[in-house]
Amino acid sequence: MPAPLIEPVARLIESFARLPGIGPKTAQRLTYHLLRAPDGEARTLAAALVAVRDQVVFCERCYNISDAPLCPICRDPNRDQLRICVVEEPLDVLALERTGEFKGLYHVLHGAISPIDGVGPDRLKIRELLGRADEASRSGSPFDEVILATNPTLEGEATAMYLAERLEAVVGIVSRIARGLPVGGDLEYADEVTLIRALQGRRAV
Amino acid sequence: MPAPLIEPVARLIESFARLPGIGPKTAQRLTYHLLRAPDGEARTLAAALVAVRDQVVFCERCYNISDAPLCPICRDPNRDQLRICVVEEPLDVLALERTGEFKGLYHVLHGAISPIDGVGPDRLKIRELLGRADEASRSGSPFDEVILATNPTLEGEATAMYLAERLEAVVGIVSRIARGLPVGGDLEYADEVTLIRALQGRRAV
Repeated sequence: MPAPLIEPVARLIESFARLPGIGPKTAQRLTYHLLRAPDGEARTLAAALVAVRDQVVFCERCYNISDAPLCPICRDPNRDQLRICVVEEPLDVLALERTGEFKGLYHVLHGAISPIDGVGPDRLKIRELLGRADEASRSGSPFDEVILATNPTLEGEATAMYLAERLEAVVGIVSRIARGLPVGGDLEYADEVTLIRALQGRRAV
Repeated sequence: MPAPLIEPVARLIESFARLPGIGPKTAQRLTYHLLRAPDGEARTLAAALVAVRDQVVFCERCYNISDAPLCPICRDPNRDQLRICVVEEPLDVLALERTGEFKGLYHVLHGAISPIDGVGPDRLKIRELLGRADEASRSGSPFDEVILATNPTLEGEATAMYLAERLEAVVGIVSRIARGLPVGGDLEYADEVTLIRALQGRRAV
Protein backbone atom coordinates (compact mmCIF):
# COMPACT_ATOMS: atom_id res chain seq x y z
CA MET A 1 0.00 0.00 0.00
CA PRO A 2 1.99 2.97 -1.28
CA ALA A 3 1.56 6.31 0.40
CA PRO A 4 -1.12 8.39 -1.31
CA LEU A 5 0.44 10.37 -4.12
CA ILE A 6 -0.39 14.08 -3.88
CA GLU A 7 -3.28 14.64 -6.30
CA PRO A 8 -1.81 17.43 -8.50
CA VAL A 9 1.39 15.40 -8.84
CA ALA A 10 -0.51 12.27 -9.84
CA ARG A 11 -2.47 14.31 -12.37
CA LEU A 12 0.66 15.77 -13.99
CA ILE A 13 2.34 12.35 -14.16
CA GLU A 14 -0.80 11.02 -15.84
CA SER A 15 -0.91 13.90 -18.35
CA PHE A 16 2.72 13.38 -19.31
CA ALA A 17 2.29 9.61 -19.58
CA ARG A 18 -0.51 10.14 -22.10
CA LEU A 19 1.97 11.67 -24.56
CA PRO A 20 3.37 9.32 -27.21
CA GLY A 21 6.72 7.77 -26.30
CA ILE A 22 6.53 8.89 -22.67
CA GLY A 23 6.24 5.97 -20.26
CA PRO A 24 5.17 6.19 -16.62
CA LYS A 25 8.78 6.32 -15.39
CA THR A 26 9.68 9.22 -17.66
CA ALA A 27 6.43 10.96 -16.72
CA GLN A 28 7.46 10.70 -13.06
CA ARG A 29 10.92 12.05 -13.77
CA LEU A 30 9.56 15.00 -15.73
CA THR A 31 7.06 15.81 -13.01
CA TYR A 32 9.63 15.78 -10.24
CA HIS A 33 12.00 17.79 -12.35
CA LEU A 34 9.38 20.51 -12.82
CA LEU A 35 8.54 20.45 -9.12
CA ARG A 36 12.06 21.49 -8.29
CA ALA A 37 12.91 23.60 -11.34
CA PRO A 38 12.51 27.37 -11.16
CA ASP A 39 8.84 28.31 -11.14
CA GLY A 40 9.09 29.81 -14.62
CA GLU A 41 9.89 26.52 -16.31
CA ALA A 42 6.55 24.84 -15.63
CA ARG A 43 4.62 28.04 -16.33
CA THR A 44 6.44 28.69 -19.61
CA LEU A 45 5.61 25.19 -20.76
CA ALA A 46 1.97 25.63 -19.70
CA ALA A 47 1.72 28.94 -21.55
CA ALA A 48 3.35 27.47 -24.66
CA LEU A 49 0.83 24.63 -24.64
CA VAL A 50 -2.13 26.98 -24.45
CA ALA A 51 -0.64 29.31 -27.09
CA VAL A 52 -0.15 26.46 -29.53
CA ARG A 53 -3.81 25.53 -29.28
CA ASP A 54 -5.01 29.12 -29.37
CA GLN A 55 -2.81 30.48 -32.13
CA VAL A 56 -1.96 27.64 -34.46
CA VAL A 57 -4.29 26.70 -37.27
CA PHE A 58 -3.93 24.61 -40.39
CA CYS A 59 -3.23 26.36 -43.68
CA GLU A 60 -6.46 26.38 -45.64
CA ARG A 61 -4.65 25.52 -48.84
CA CYS A 62 -1.96 22.95 -47.93
CA TYR A 63 -2.98 21.96 -44.36
CA ASN A 64 0.47 22.58 -42.99
CA ILE A 65 0.50 24.25 -39.57
CA SER A 66 0.13 28.00 -39.80
CA ASP A 67 -0.45 31.15 -37.80
CA ALA A 68 -2.66 32.65 -40.52
CA PRO A 69 -5.22 31.35 -43.05
CA LEU A 70 -2.33 30.72 -45.45
CA CYS A 71 0.97 29.26 -44.17
CA PRO A 72 4.31 31.04 -44.73
CA ILE A 73 5.18 28.70 -47.61
CA CYS A 74 1.86 29.20 -49.43
CA ARG A 75 2.19 32.98 -48.86
CA ASP A 76 5.68 33.07 -50.39
CA PRO A 77 5.38 34.34 -54.02
CA ASN A 78 8.91 33.08 -54.77
CA ARG A 79 7.93 29.43 -54.40
CA ASP A 80 7.12 27.43 -57.52
CA GLN A 81 3.33 27.44 -57.50
CA LEU A 82 3.03 24.55 -59.96
CA ARG A 83 5.10 21.95 -58.12
CA ILE A 84 3.43 20.25 -55.16
CA CYS A 85 5.07 17.90 -52.70
CA VAL A 86 2.59 15.63 -50.89
CA VAL A 87 3.59 14.49 -47.38
CA GLU A 88 1.89 12.70 -44.52
CA GLU A 89 2.71 15.05 -41.63
CA PRO A 90 3.71 18.67 -40.90
CA LEU A 91 7.01 17.29 -39.53
CA ASP A 92 7.78 15.96 -43.01
CA VAL A 93 7.51 19.52 -44.36
CA LEU A 94 10.08 20.63 -41.80
CA ALA A 95 12.42 17.79 -42.76
CA LEU A 96 12.16 18.61 -46.46
CA GLU A 97 12.55 22.36 -45.89
CA ARG A 98 15.76 21.71 -44.00
CA THR A 99 17.26 20.26 -47.18
CA GLY A 100 16.61 23.48 -49.12
CA GLU A 101 16.17 21.23 -52.17
CA PHE A 102 12.49 21.78 -52.88
CA LYS A 103 11.15 25.16 -53.96
CA GLY A 104 7.51 24.34 -54.60
CA LEU A 105 4.46 24.12 -52.36
CA TYR A 106 3.27 21.31 -50.12
CA HIS A 107 0.16 19.38 -49.34
CA VAL A 108 -0.09 17.71 -45.93
CA LEU A 109 -2.39 14.67 -45.86
CA HIS A 110 -2.33 14.27 -42.06
CA GLY A 111 -1.80 10.56 -42.24
CA ALA A 112 -1.77 7.71 -44.72
CA ILE A 113 -4.41 5.29 -45.89
CA SER A 114 -4.50 2.38 -43.46
CA PRO A 115 -7.55 0.10 -43.62
CA ILE A 116 -6.30 -1.80 -40.52
CA ASP A 117 -6.46 1.39 -38.47
CA GLY A 118 -9.75 2.39 -40.09
CA VAL A 119 -8.16 5.32 -41.94
CA GLY A 120 -9.75 5.62 -45.37
CA PRO A 121 -9.07 8.32 -48.00
CA ASP A 122 -11.92 10.43 -46.61
CA ARG A 123 -10.14 10.76 -43.25
CA LEU A 124 -7.17 12.43 -44.95
CA LYS A 125 -6.80 15.69 -46.86
CA ILE A 126 -7.03 13.79 -50.16
CA ARG A 127 -10.23 15.35 -51.49
CA GLU A 128 -8.60 18.74 -50.89
CA LEU A 129 -5.45 17.72 -52.83
CA LEU A 130 -7.49 16.42 -55.77
CA GLY A 131 -9.48 19.64 -55.64
CA ARG A 132 -6.31 21.75 -55.86
CA ALA A 133 -5.06 19.72 -58.83
CA ASP A 134 -8.44 19.86 -60.57
CA GLU A 135 -8.81 23.58 -60.08
CA ALA A 136 -5.30 24.27 -61.40
CA SER A 137 -6.00 22.06 -64.40
CA ARG A 138 -9.33 23.70 -65.18
CA SER A 139 -7.88 27.19 -64.81
CA GLY A 140 -5.55 26.38 -67.71
CA SER A 141 -2.27 26.09 -65.76
CA PRO A 142 -2.17 22.55 -64.38
CA PHE A 143 0.51 21.54 -61.89
CA ASP A 144 3.81 20.70 -63.58
CA GLU A 145 4.55 17.99 -61.04
CA VAL A 146 3.12 16.39 -57.95
CA ILE A 147 5.82 14.62 -55.92
CA LEU A 148 4.42 11.87 -53.72
CA ALA A 149 6.62 11.99 -50.62
CA THR A 150 4.58 9.78 -48.33
CA ASN A 151 6.65 7.42 -46.17
CA PRO A 152 8.20 4.29 -47.71
CA THR A 153 5.90 2.11 -45.59
CA LEU A 154 3.01 -0.13 -46.55
CA GLU A 155 0.56 2.67 -45.78
CA GLY A 156 2.64 5.36 -47.47
CA GLU A 157 3.04 3.27 -50.63
CA ALA A 158 -0.67 2.47 -50.75
CA THR A 159 -1.49 6.14 -50.35
CA ALA A 160 0.97 7.09 -53.10
CA MET A 161 -0.55 4.54 -55.48
CA TYR A 162 -4.06 5.72 -54.68
CA LEU A 163 -3.08 9.33 -55.35
CA ALA A 164 -1.08 8.56 -58.51
CA GLU A 165 -4.12 6.94 -60.14
CA ARG A 166 -6.31 9.92 -59.39
CA LEU A 167 -3.79 12.65 -60.25
CA GLU A 168 -2.42 11.33 -63.55
CA ALA A 169 -5.16 12.87 -65.64
CA VAL A 170 -4.89 16.39 -64.24
CA VAL A 171 -1.18 17.06 -63.59
CA GLY A 172 1.92 17.04 -65.78
CA ILE A 173 4.03 14.50 -63.95
CA VAL A 174 3.25 12.44 -60.87
CA SER A 175 6.52 11.31 -59.26
CA ARG A 176 7.48 9.31 -56.21
CA ILE A 177 10.54 10.02 -54.03
CA ALA A 178 13.33 7.50 -54.50
CA ARG A 179 13.68 4.53 -52.21
CA GLY A 180 17.12 3.01 -51.79
CA LEU A 181 20.04 2.76 -49.42
CA PRO A 182 20.20 5.61 -46.93
CA VAL A 183 23.35 7.68 -47.33
CA GLY A 184 25.91 6.53 -44.80
CA GLY A 185 24.14 3.18 -44.50
CA ASP A 186 25.75 -0.20 -44.98
CA LEU A 187 24.68 -2.50 -47.81
CA GLU A 188 25.42 -5.51 -45.63
CA TYR A 189 22.80 -4.49 -43.10
CA ALA A 190 20.10 -3.26 -45.49
CA ASP A 191 16.85 -5.23 -45.52
CA GLU A 192 15.88 -7.04 -48.71
CA VAL A 193 13.07 -4.73 -49.69
CA THR A 194 15.36 -1.70 -49.49
CA LEU A 195 18.02 -3.54 -51.53
CA ILE A 196 15.46 -4.51 -54.18
CA ARG A 197 14.32 -0.88 -54.36
CA ALA A 198 17.93 0.30 -54.56
CA LEU A 199 18.56 -2.04 -57.50
CA GLN A 200 15.32 -1.13 -59.26
CA GLY A 201 16.07 2.55 -58.87
CA ARG A 202 19.65 2.33 -60.17
CA ARG A 203 20.84 4.97 -62.61
CA ALA A 204 23.66 5.15 -65.14
CA VAL A 205 26.64 7.08 -63.74
CA MET B 1 17.13 28.17 -45.38
CA PRO B 2 14.26 26.32 -43.73
CA ALA B 3 10.79 27.84 -43.86
CA PRO B 4 10.06 29.99 -40.82
CA LEU B 5 8.65 27.82 -38.05
CA ILE B 6 5.41 29.24 -36.65
CA GLU B 7 6.38 31.07 -33.47
CA PRO B 8 4.08 29.32 -30.94
CA VAL B 9 5.16 25.95 -32.33
CA ALA B 10 8.84 26.86 -32.05
CA ARG B 11 8.25 28.03 -28.49
CA LEU B 12 6.54 24.78 -27.44
CA ILE B 13 9.27 22.64 -29.04
CA GLU B 14 11.83 24.70 -27.14
CA SER B 15 9.95 24.31 -23.83
CA PHE B 16 9.73 20.55 -24.25
CA ALA B 17 13.38 20.28 -25.27
CA ARG B 18 14.40 21.99 -22.05
CA LEU B 19 13.06 19.04 -20.04
CA PRO B 20 15.62 16.41 -19.00
CA GLY B 21 15.84 13.44 -21.34
CA ILE B 22 13.80 15.13 -24.08
CA GLY B 23 15.86 15.84 -27.18
CA PRO B 24 14.88 18.23 -29.99
CA LYS B 25 13.39 15.38 -32.10
CA THR B 26 11.17 14.15 -29.28
CA ALA B 27 10.18 17.74 -28.51
CA GLN B 28 9.06 18.11 -32.14
CA ARG B 29 7.09 14.88 -32.05
CA LEU B 30 5.34 15.86 -28.82
CA THR B 31 4.48 19.29 -30.17
CA TYR B 32 3.00 17.96 -33.39
CA HIS B 33 1.14 15.30 -31.48
CA LEU B 34 -0.50 17.94 -29.29
CA LEU B 35 -1.31 20.07 -32.33
CA ARG B 36 -3.46 17.31 -33.71
CA ALA B 37 -4.72 15.74 -30.48
CA PRO B 38 -8.14 16.72 -29.15
CA ASP B 39 -8.01 20.24 -27.74
CA GLY B 40 -8.43 18.94 -24.18
CA GLU B 41 -5.13 17.09 -24.14
CA ALA B 42 -2.88 20.15 -24.38
CA ARG B 43 -5.08 22.15 -22.00
CA THR B 44 -5.22 19.36 -19.41
CA LEU B 45 -1.43 19.15 -19.44
CA ALA B 46 -1.17 22.95 -19.15
CA ALA B 47 -3.59 22.99 -16.21
CA ALA B 48 -1.77 20.14 -14.50
CA LEU B 49 1.51 22.02 -14.83
CA VAL B 50 0.11 25.15 -13.25
CA ALA B 51 -1.65 23.16 -10.49
CA VAL B 52 1.55 21.38 -9.55
CA ARG B 53 3.32 24.69 -9.05
CA ASP B 54 0.38 26.30 -7.26
CA GLN B 55 -0.66 23.48 -4.97
CA VAL B 56 2.39 21.40 -4.24
CA VAL B 57 4.73 22.37 -1.41
CA PHE B 58 7.48 20.57 0.44
CA CYS B 59 6.65 18.96 3.79
CA GLU B 60 8.09 21.20 6.47
CA ARG B 61 9.33 18.22 8.45
CA CYS B 62 10.69 15.72 5.90
CA TYR B 63 10.83 17.83 2.69
CA ASN B 64 8.91 15.26 0.68
CA ILE B 65 6.36 16.74 -1.71
CA SER B 66 3.10 17.57 -0.02
CA ASP B 67 -0.24 19.30 -0.43
CA ALA B 68 -0.20 20.55 3.17
CA PRO B 69 2.42 21.77 5.65
CA LEU B 70 2.94 18.14 6.70
CA CYS B 71 3.00 15.39 4.06
CA PRO B 72 0.64 12.37 4.24
CA ILE B 73 3.41 10.16 5.65
CA CYS B 74 4.39 12.62 8.42
CA ARG B 75 0.68 13.08 9.23
CA ASP B 76 0.08 9.34 9.60
CA PRO B 77 0.08 8.45 13.34
CA ASN B 78 0.51 4.75 12.51
CA ARG B 79 4.01 5.22 11.10
CA ASP B 80 6.98 4.52 13.34
CA GLN B 81 8.00 8.01 14.45
CA LEU B 82 11.45 6.95 15.63
CA ARG B 83 12.73 5.34 12.45
CA ILE B 84 13.86 7.71 9.69
CA CYS B 85 14.84 6.76 6.16
CA VAL B 86 17.05 9.35 4.45
CA VAL B 87 16.78 9.56 0.65
CA GLU B 88 18.02 11.91 -2.05
CA GLU B 89 14.79 12.57 -3.96
CA PRO B 90 10.99 12.46 -3.57
CA LEU B 91 10.95 9.74 -6.25
CA ASP B 92 12.99 7.55 -3.89
CA VAL B 93 10.21 7.84 -1.30
CA LEU B 94 7.74 6.59 -3.90
CA ALA B 95 9.99 3.67 -4.80
CA LEU B 96 10.41 2.65 -1.15
CA GLU B 97 6.70 3.08 -0.39
CA ARG B 98 5.86 0.72 -3.23
CA THR B 99 7.73 -2.05 -1.40
CA GLY B 100 5.52 -1.67 1.68
CA GLU B 101 8.61 -2.73 3.68
CA PHE B 102 9.32 0.48 5.57
CA LYS B 103 6.90 1.81 8.18
CA GLY B 104 8.82 4.77 9.51
CA LEU B 105 9.20 8.37 8.34
CA TYR B 106 11.43 9.86 5.68
CA HIS B 107 13.82 12.72 5.19
CA VAL B 108 14.39 13.96 1.65
CA LEU B 109 17.80 15.62 1.14
CA HIS B 110 17.01 16.92 -2.39
CA GLY B 111 20.32 15.79 -3.78
CA ALA B 112 23.65 14.42 -2.66
CA ILE B 113 26.94 16.06 -1.74
CA SER B 114 28.90 16.59 -4.94
CA PRO B 115 31.86 18.99 -4.77
CA ILE B 116 32.34 18.70 -8.55
CA ASP B 117 28.85 20.08 -9.14
CA GLY B 118 29.29 22.64 -6.38
CA VAL B 119 26.74 20.93 -4.12
CA GLY B 120 27.92 21.19 -0.52
CA PRO B 121 26.04 20.00 2.58
CA ASP B 122 24.45 23.44 2.99
CA ARG B 123 22.67 23.12 -0.37
CA LEU B 124 20.84 20.01 0.90
CA LYS B 125 18.33 19.47 3.68
CA ILE B 126 21.10 18.16 5.94
CA ARG B 127 20.93 20.83 8.64
CA GLU B 128 17.21 20.07 8.89
CA LEU B 129 17.88 16.33 9.30
CA LEU B 130 20.48 16.91 12.00
CA GLY B 131 18.02 19.28 13.67
CA ARG B 132 15.31 16.60 13.72
CA ALA B 133 17.72 14.04 15.21
CA ASP B 134 19.01 16.53 17.80
CA GLU B 135 15.56 17.59 18.86
CA ALA B 136 14.36 13.98 19.26
CA SER B 137 17.48 13.19 21.28
CA ARG B 138 17.10 16.23 23.54
CA SER B 139 13.40 15.54 24.10
CA GLY B 140 14.35 12.20 25.66
CA SER B 141 13.18 9.89 22.88
CA PRO B 142 16.00 9.78 20.32
CA PHE B 143 15.46 8.11 16.95
CA ASP B 144 15.83 4.32 17.15
CA GLU B 145 17.36 4.17 13.70
CA VAL B 146 18.31 6.38 10.80
CA ILE B 147 18.58 4.38 7.57
CA LEU B 148 20.83 6.07 5.01
CA ALA B 149 19.22 5.19 1.67
CA THR B 150 21.12 7.60 -0.57
CA ASN B 151 22.08 6.13 -3.95
CA PRO B 152 24.99 3.65 -4.22
CA THR B 153 26.97 6.22 -6.22
CA LEU B 154 30.08 8.17 -5.35
CA GLU B 155 27.96 11.13 -4.26
CA GLY B 156 25.43 9.01 -2.39
CA GLU B 157 28.17 7.17 -0.49
CA ALA B 158 29.95 10.40 0.40
CA THR B 159 26.67 11.86 1.65
CA ALA B 160 25.97 8.74 3.71
CA MET B 161 29.43 8.87 5.30
CA TYR B 162 29.06 12.56 6.05
CA LEU B 163 25.67 11.97 7.71
CA ALA B 164 26.78 8.86 9.61
CA GLU B 165 29.56 10.78 11.34
CA ARG B 166 27.21 13.52 12.45
CA LEU B 167 24.28 11.31 13.48
CA GLU B 168 26.10 8.62 15.48
CA ALA B 169 26.05 10.61 18.72
CA VAL B 170 22.32 11.41 18.70
CA VAL B 171 20.52 8.35 17.28
CA GLY B 172 20.35 4.67 18.31
CA ILE B 173 21.57 3.05 15.11
CA VAL B 174 22.76 4.58 11.87
CA SER B 175 22.42 2.03 9.07
CA ARG B 176 23.10 1.95 5.34
CA ILE B 177 20.98 0.06 2.78
CA ALA B 178 22.68 -3.08 1.45
CA ARG B 179 24.64 -3.00 -1.76
CA GLY B 180 24.98 -6.23 -3.70
CA LEU B 181 23.72 -8.08 -6.74
CA PRO B 182 20.32 -6.85 -7.91
CA VAL B 183 17.67 -9.57 -7.72
CA GLY B 184 17.29 -11.17 -11.14
CA GLY B 185 20.74 -9.91 -12.09
CA ASP B 186 23.55 -12.10 -13.42
CA LEU B 187 26.79 -12.50 -11.46
CA GLU B 188 28.69 -12.85 -14.74
CA TYR B 189 27.72 -9.36 -15.81
CA ALA B 190 28.02 -7.58 -12.46
CA ASP B 191 30.73 -4.92 -12.22
CA GLU B 192 33.59 -5.47 -9.81
CA VAL B 193 32.54 -2.90 -7.24
CA THR B 194 29.09 -4.48 -6.98
CA LEU B 195 30.66 -7.94 -6.63
CA ILE B 196 33.01 -6.72 -3.90
CA ARG B 197 30.06 -5.18 -2.05
CA ALA B 198 28.07 -8.40 -2.50
CA LEU B 199 30.91 -10.42 -0.98
CA GLN B 200 31.49 -7.95 1.85
CA GLY B 201 27.78 -7.94 2.67
CA ARG B 202 27.41 -11.75 2.69
CA ARG B 203 25.39 -13.34 5.48
CA ALA B 204 25.20 -16.83 6.94
CA VAL B 205 22.21 -18.74 5.56
